[in-house]
Amino acid sequence: MDQKIQTKSGRPKLDDAGRKLLAAARRRIVEGGLASLSARGLAAEAGCSVGTLYNNFRDLNGVIRQVNIATTRRLETALEDSLSRLPRDAGQTARLTAMASVYLDFAMDNPNLWNALFEFRPKQLDDQRLPEMREAMLTRMMEAGAHGTDPTTDQDRVALRMLWASVHGVVSLVVNDFIPGADRETARAYVNLVVSSGVAGYRTLLREERT
Amino acid sequence: MDQKIQTKSGRPKLDDAGRKLLAAARRRIVEGGLASLSARGLAAEAGCSVGTLYNNFRDLNGVIRQVNIATTRRLETALEDSLSRLPRDAGQTARLTAMASVYLDFAMDNPNLWNALFEFRPKQLDDQRLPEMREAMLTRMMEAGAHGTDPTTDQDRVALRMLWASVHGVVSLVVNDFIPGADRETARAYVNLVVSSGVAGYRTLLREERT
Repeated sequence: MDQKIQTKSGRPKLDDAGRKLLAAARRRIVEGGLASLSARGLAAEAGCSVGTLYNNFRDLNGVIRQVNIATTRRLETALEDSLSRLPRDAGQTARLTAMASVYLDFAMDNPNLWNALFEFRPKQLDDQRLPEMREAMLTRMMEAGAHGTDPTTDQDRVALRMLWASVHGVVSLVVNDFIPGADRETARAYVNLVVSSGVAGYRTLLREERT
Repeated sequence: MDQKIQTKSGRPKLDDAGRKLLAAARRRIVEGGLASLSARGLAAEAGCSVGTLYNNFRDLNGVIRQVNIATTRRLETALEDSLSRLPRDAGQTARLTAMASVYLDFAMDNPNLWNALFEFRPKQLDDQRLPEMREAMLTRMMEAGAHGTDPTTDQDRVALRMLWASVHGVVSLVVNDFIPGADRETARAYVNLVVSSGVAGYRTLLREERT
């Protein structure tokens, strides 16, 4: 019975101490980022032993993984909500702009949780749950961005992924203060520029290719 | 005489142990990233006391800062070299593509050193040397990207900065394995797409604005 029971959601069944550990890890990440986590510190904060942490999560990476899964879920919900608030006939740029704006807000509202999604890079990924969730979210965003009636070739999918990567770059630099003087509304204007010039540029390139 | 003598380059005058500490820090970052650094570990590796580290660099952040300054210089040199290899009449897209390609190669060749540039985010920045170097490098890249004869309005500068942020996003996701199956040449195609669609898109937006 060493094997932990995994629920369908990929969340291990946690005992009471496990839930406390998870809450403590989230709190620590919110306050001080990934670097402020240690198995010993978490156990102390949750009032249990380090052994209990290992029993519930196998190792510290297991705790971080669960925090990141929860963060990814919240981000996904925020993105879905932004799409559902749009009028049915909203065009591609409107859809992509809405999603990019939510991505920016989520990162600015939860800087350390958001950073943890990208700074958590264990050398060996013990399970594929997180990458799969991320890919599923991206696929869903790309479908929404492609907007049904638009062509969805492999080329389009690459372009949409690059648009996300571009927005991600701006958001990441803004959130971590690498763009001087970028408050939220300036950052939103930046992200909007990246989306609209990216969409316009890709369309231009496709036209040029066809002629 | 508590104050360290700073050379014009912002490099503190290091004694022999200081140079050993700096080399050890660089080696550790190359091998295991920022997270693998500790004052104690560095001192042990350099064969000196933690006090000697504090005397030379004030604290661990001081060591990381010096490693990052050296990395930024190398990156800047690589970018300048790529520009000097271009024909004199190379256009804007060619210049930006060349710089983006060098940025990608630098990050892929030095993943941990490059990550350290962006993961080093001390709460209080004791000196502005690194941000100033980064801004100077960016300004130089933007001038080269604007290509002299092109208009260089504030709007252009924002667009060029966003183009860098976009390329940075792709590079950062590729280097840290967040884009499945992106080997170097695939990544280069991605970066080229971001540059060419970004340039084409920005030109389209400007034209639309004028009409």
